[in-house]
Amino acid sequence: MNSIDHSGLDVLISEVGPRDGLQSIQAIMPTEAKKAWIKAEADAGVPEIEVGSFVPPKLMPQLADTAEIVAYARTIPGLQVAALVPNFRGAENAIKAGAHKISLPLSVSETHSQRNLNRTHEQVFGEIAKVVALIGSLPEDQRPGFEGSLSTAFGCSIEGVVKQDKVVDIAARLMALGCDEVGLSDTTGSANPAQLRNMIRAVKAVVGDGNLAAVHLHNTRGLGLANALVALEENIFTFDASLGGLGGCPAAPGASGNIVTEDLVFMFDAMGIKTGIELDKLMQVREIVRKALPNEELYGFTPDAGYPKGYAAGKGWGL
Amino acid sequence: MNSIDHSGLDVLISEVGPRDGLQSIQAIMPTEAKKAWIKAEADAGVPEIEVGSFVPPKLMPQLADTAEIVAYARTIPGLQVAALVPNFRGAENAIKAGAHKISLPLSVSETHSQRNLNRTHEQVFGEIAKVVALIGSLPEDQRPGFEGSLSTAFGCSIEGVVKQDKVVDIAARLMALGCDEVGLSDTTGSANPAQLRNMIRAVKAVVGDGNLAAVHLHNTRGLGLANALVALEENIFTFDASLGGLGGCPAAPGASGNIVTEDLVFMFDAMGIKTGIELDKLMQVREIVRKALPNEELYGFTPDAGYPKGYAAGKGWGL
Repeated sequence: MNSIDHSGLDVLISEVGPRDGLQSIQAIMPTEAKKAWIKAEADAGVPEIEVGSFVPPKLMPQLADTAEIVAYARTIPGLQVAALVPNFRGAENAIKAGAHKISLPLSVSETHSQRNLNRTHEQVFGEIAKVVALIGSLPEDQRPGFEGSLSTAFGCSIEGVVKQDKVVDIAARLMALGCDEVGLSDTTGSANPAQLRNMIRAVKAVVGDGNLAAVHLHNTRGLGLANALVALEENIFTFDASLGGLGGCPAAPGASGNIVTEDLVFMFDAMGIKTGIELDKLMQVREIVRKALPNEELYGFTPDAGYPKGYAAGKGWGL
Repeated sequence: MNSIDHSGLDVLISEVGPRDGLQSIQAIMPTEAKKAWIKAEADAGVPEIEVGSFVPPKLMPQLADTAEIVAYARTIPGLQVAALVPNFRGAENAIKAGAHKISLPLSVSETHSQRNLNRTHEQVFGEIAKVVALIGSLPEDQRPGFEGSLSTAFGCSIEGVVKQDKVVDIAARLMALGCDEVGLSDTTGSANPAQLRNMIRAVKAVVGDGNLAAVHLHNTRGLGLANALVALEENIFTFDASLGGLGGCPAAPGASGNIVTEDLVFMFDAMGIKTGIELDKLMQVREIVRKALPNEELYGFTPDAGYPKGYAAGKGWGL
């Protein structure tokens, strides 16, 4: 498979700011600034970055340069380059551009799937089957990893509560269709630690321990890091996060969107969990984003408060 | 002992806003507003409130009415009334006023103890011994609970890292002196989940499982609820929290001081953990505080974002 060895890490932090963050704001970040951001995060040791999404540019002009960004990111040694794809056509383009890993999101809430993506579950399954066939037709060393990502898995802003059984069934279906792994996304920031723990165990019981690899958490109600801790305890390997919590909801001041990469890395760093990321360098990446998006608020408790007195990154704290 | 039965609760949330929140801001809340706040929280089911501190009024004019507030709070049925005392004299006054529970903080960092309280550890131990003797001289049904509270237990803003051994030794000494229980305070918001878990286990191993009952967490670096989750897993019963995170550090925008009561209760409520608190009513208490302190920022992710669609407080979520 076309991917990078991460066997030295305890967890894999996947920066999704260039995709999830930028798609959530009106401003369009210049291509050169995106490249500088991605390069700086890779230099700080961030092992994977979701650099964009292969959606039609007219729907999301913020990400119109995704193919160019993927090609650029592929030139950075050691960086795993991920991209989101909404359908088969997006997957074709992502593969052409050279992504190491592609994720196709399926909304567990079918109402959400129809209203947001204009597709029923069966239609999305059809796209996934075609993507699997396409990947299978490639030479083995050119095949990207393919994640089926279950969005609105912990609550839907239209349907409300989402049943665990439904999530488990869809996860099983995605694996049966040939995804390499599945991920759970708390798109609406509704998950709580007990729900997440139960969900992870239930999904793993059906798809196999190693096949539920990723969680995508939001901090909408302040529970993002508590949820991340539970995911860590349940042996989840991949944690999505966004620098500065970029993409925070303007309707909810202080309520960032994705969990903040800096705070997540600080938590793991303090706990002595190996992320491969140099926290000091990561903190400096904020300046690049701040200059490129001067009107966006950057979140983050640790950046605001600074380290505890005497804290040295990379050594754990009080263990 | 002069206390309330909490056997129906999974955890005891102790609102410390009227003490820790109000002592951290310049504005002085009028006595009547404090009473309205305390009454409204008690009506929402908050089982314990730390209503003030028996410090000299010239040092902390914000809390000069603590005796009156304690006496008032004692008239509210079912509410456990707690107060902070810095020394023997404060304890005398707290007992005279009728507090159910008193806490005396000892800074684990001796530098901090000397600089902030002007007392060495031995001097604080001396005060504690006198308080224990005073309590022992009272009729049994008039004795308040007495907590020895270890502040700066996870990091000191002067000394830096604080060694676990030192915390354990002081906790053992406080129990030997006759405290009913000890508590761990992350005064500087430096704790991480791994450090906290290790610390709780180490202290419990020495003082006995039930004698480490309380944690006092801050959200300075965004890890407050992750730390609370660890404390829950380690069978801590009492969780301090402050409505609206009142007392947040003005130097760190968004970095609230104490963990926010509303967010903590939302997390437990969603998890199906019994707190005895009606979340809907708790949310409404913010209006009382907002009107009484119009220039203070109130924090809280859940209050800002609202409940998840379809959420009904008191029933858990997605379990």
